[in-house]
Amino acid sequence: MNDPRIISARVWDVRFPTSDALDGSDAMHPDPDYSAAHVVFTTDHPGLEGHGLTFTIGRGNELCVHGIRSLLPKVLGKRLSDITADMGAFWRDVTSDSQLRWVGPEKGVIHLAAAAVVNGVWDLWAKSVGKPLWKLITDMSAEDIVRCIDFRYISDVLSPDDALGILRDNERGRADREGEMTTRGYPAYVTSAGWLGYDDQKIRQLCREGVAEGWNHFKIKVGRDLKDDIRRCRIVREEIGPARRLMVDANQRWDVPEAIAWMEHLRPFAPWWIEEPTSPDDILGHAAVARAVAPIGVATGEQCQNRVVFKQLMQMDAIRFVQLDACRLGGVNECLAVMLLAKKFGLPVCPHAGGVGLCEYVAHLVMVDYIRISASTEDRVAEWVDHLHEHFEDPARARDGRYLAPTHPGYATMKRASLERHEYPSGPLWTERLGKRTPS
Amino acid sequence: MNDPRIISARVWDVRFPTSDALDGSDAMHPDPDYSAAHVVFTTDHPGLEGHGLTFTIGRGNELCVHGIRSLLPKVLGKRLSDITADMGAFWRDVTSDSQLRWVGPEKGVIHLAAAAVVNGVWDLWAKSVGKPLWKLITDMSAEDIVRCIDFRYISDVLSPDDALGILRDNERGRADREGEMTTRGYPAYVTSAGWLGYDDQKIRQLCREGVAEGWNHFKIKVGRDLKDDIRRCRIVREEIGPARRLMVDANQRWDVPEAIAWMEHLRPFAPWWIEEPTSPDDILGHAAVARAVAPIGVATGEQCQNRVVFKQLMQMDAIRFVQLDACRLGGVNECLAVMLLAKKFGLPVCPHAGGVGLCEYVAHLVMVDYIRISASTEDRVAEWVDHLHEHFEDPARARDGRYLAPTHPGYATMKRASLERHEYPSGPLWTERLGKRTPS
Repeated sequence: MNDPRIISARVWDVRFPTSDALDGSDAMHPDPDYSAAHVVFTTDHPGLEGHGLTFTIGRGNELCVHGIRSLLPKVLGKRLSDITADMGAFWRDVTSDSQLRWVGPEKGVIHLAAAAVVNGVWDLWAKSVGKPLWKLITDMSAEDIVRCIDFRYISDVLSPDDALGILRDNERGRADREGEMTTRGYPAYVTSAGWLGYDDQKIRQLCREGVAEGWNHFKIKVGRDLKDDIRRCRIVREEIGPARRLMVDANQRWDVPEAIAWMEHLRPFAPWWIEEPTSPDDILGHAAVARAVAPIGVATGEQCQNRVVFKQLMQMDAIRFVQLDACRLGGVNECLAVMLLAKKFGLPVCPHAGGVGLCEYVAHLVMVDYIRISASTEDRVAEWVDHLHEHFEDPARARDGRYLAPTHPGYATMKRASLERHEYPSGPLWTERLGKRTPS
Repeated sequence: MNDPRIISARVWDVRFPTSDALDGSDAMHPDPDYSAAHVVFTTDHPGLEGHGLTFTIGRGNELCVHGIRSLLPKVLGKRLSDITADMGAFWRDVTSDSQLRWVGPEKGVIHLAAAAVVNGVWDLWAKSVGKPLWKLITDMSAEDIVRCIDFRYISDVLSPDDALGILRDNERGRADREGEMTTRGYPAYVTSAGWLGYDDQKIRQLCREGVAEGWNHFKIKVGRDLKDDIRRCRIVREEIGPARRLMVDANQRWDVPEAIAWMEHLRPFAPWWIEEPTSPDDILGHAAVARAVAPIGVATGEQCQNRVVFKQLMQMDAIRFVQLDACRLGGVNECLAVMLLAKKFGLPVCPHAGGVGLCEYVAHLVMVDYIRISASTEDRVAEWVDHLHEHFEDPARARDGRYLAPTHPGYATMKRASLERHEYPSGPLWTERLGKRTPS
């Protein structure tokens, strides 16, 4: 395919009314409506589009939509080769605009928006060469992968040469690992059983179904009520037995002393990790919790804003599991940076997923991590939630407790009909609902 | 005045074309157009309004405008007393919406927007009681001040009781300090001489004027070119002599090793502080720089997102000067939290100012800090930049190198004519300019 030019973009505010069923309810986010700020780039090649999204939980999605629009001048009118010739420079340009960076930098709305733009360009690139995103990257030379990364603010612990060294060390076995991924897939775990809004019977039933389907890791939400948590941990442990792994997730509910005290009460159920025990910004707080709750590991990442914060969590031994988020970080480039940092520190990457679109993205990222960077699946599990995949042309798939390798060209493509139906507030799903109730 | 109800809000995108003159140019922000996302709350009391703003440097201001709109349901229709009865709960409500917090939390666009909303409510409150904001707060009981603060995520180092203790310890001398502020004012420093865009002759001239006007602290921008920096530091030191203080500001230009190496070259000019040596998110990086460059102190804060990050900078001895920003933090409430944290750690607060509106806000905050919290002016200087004050009904004022105490009721009120003229892109200033050039 000749070098396409990005000629226009349409930004969609799509929202799914997941708060109806309390799917996704946790101690800090009781009523999420899974949403995406979604950009579609069109090119001068008929039928060739780039889809990129960032995930949010409802209100505030409109801000990411506006953020994407503010970033469009970085992309519109460019040839794909203008961008891919130096993906690191492109990423720096998107994330370090001399005025826009003030409203970040590299965090919050503007960084979530940058992720959608960056992911959309990677999707376009992968489609233009007819490969799934993971295959585009795993086929690159070590030098080309390193050129995608902005080492600003991480060079004190990971230099371009360090990154090259990691990638070169893993050349051996690369083909075998690719074969393993395309046949067996990558280890996953489920959160579906453990939302706070579910009653005991539903938790028990979902655990049984999970065990029957071959899952070995089960995560539940905690942090709203200690007695409830003890009871729910007991139910899950009873259902999954002593050999399978239980993880608990507090979604930032606690201050540091409270996190430490609360986890003492959950220790009898032998959780493998405690996720988001406190503020995602509190690196020293996570380190204090990590020291106190060991051998339970601390996990965080879905609201860890950028590679600089991850760097410090690693420097401080504050986390044992790196839960990078494909949209919270500024898209594929920064995910690569954090996966390389994790490898440098010997920590497993266990990506955050769920919501809408995150599983689709994670399916690619874990392939890249395993084939080119970590070369290990030990203590590594990617989050899997079986929601909303039907809205994608290339839905994420799991089998026997494992993510399967994506096969369609691109990164993730939301169906046109889903975009149109769920557009907020003007799509038919919302005009119907908002006619019946006061808009939130 | 009876209890007013907030009945409507108008949000303004106002921008000042400061990039024309390279005012405000630094190593990371070469072309700022000082801007404000500005909200005006109207009430059911004719003539009683609340003005709140957040500061940005141009592109991206539109995102803060949208962010303010997304937060308006937290305020519209409320009586002032509904809010002021529990200011801490109001602040938590604005900053912790169960869906909006996903696009923060407490950082970037949504937190900048929260600052405008929160500042607007404080402005309204102060106007409703006919006092300048600083006087409203300094007249409060210790208990009432503490009730304004959200201690979430800082309780491990500062409890409500700690805060009460600090405020009570300072009851003695409070009236004297208030008297001192209303007569002499609070120590300030100028950045006006040191923007990167200025030539040597202009720097020399501005230093001479500064000395003649009674300034004792002079700050210049560094980080773009080492030879330039050495030459400019030498010029400033020659002009201000050995007794006045020189500060340098790198605006996040460096990685950690580069910061340390660069500062070795500037050490001969005896800078008092190095400001923003690296990423504002890199707490450990600031700590490493602090250890290496001592006795030069590290200063940061204008892009320090919230009290949680400040807490850690203090815990790690990473900064010696706390440069809180009245708009980067989520408004008055969080500024109080950070001032109390600084007192707990024995660190001076030297607020960031300049831009548009920040000096107006800082003039109040330093009064509160001195009269009720720090009770000291030692090593304390607030930034002063003599730009754009003419757009306020109650412009910030400095005399003999000191901020004067504001006298008008409220926090800061931008003139209606300035809002209308500078509205972007539809105000007359911009329609004229944009007619002549391509919009950025």
